[in-house]
Amino acid sequence: MARVVVDVMLKPEILDPQGQAVANALPRLGVNDVSSVRIGRRIEIEFAGEPDLERAREIADKLLANPVIEDFTIRLDGAPAEVA
Amino acid sequence: MARVVVDVMLKPEILDPQGQAVANALPRLGVNDVSSVRIGRRIEIEFAGEPDLERAREIADKLLANPVIEDFTIRLDGAPAEVA
Repeated sequence: MARVVVDVMLKPEILDPQGQAVANALPRLGVNDVSSVRIGRRIEIEFAGEPDLERAREIADKLLANPVIEDFTIRLDGAPAEVA
Repeated sequence: MARVVVDVMLKPEILDPQGQAVANALPRLGVNDVSSVRIGRRIEIEFAGEPDLERAREIADKLLANPVIEDFTIRLDGAPAEVA
């Protein structure tokens, strides 16, 4: 099974209220050593045949990420991330 | 900077309508070799000091994942995933 993983995260300069809400809840769990939490999406694309990173990049660009506010990285499952 | 990454994905037996919607849109982009798309969350937790995987597991379990329908993996950024 050939799986490509696309990680989509908000650009660092974009506020992430969802992550901030988690970070704000941590002291109530007794966790005081976390400086930030950011929440993004992880998309797993299974190819029927050979995995096609270029194709995955096109899918990410057109359907999965909003390039105005998000960055994405693409990699074969198990391989280190390559910045898009 | 010590970053722990938590990947939260729906369990394989749980339907993923969001991923299905992306998969259904692909033929319109001319992509016909994708067999499935699954969409989950990627959470980046920055620790002020040493990254604490056990602490991150506790956070994931209590705040980030719904164990009824989701599985999560935890890893140091850059390291291979460890199944939770």
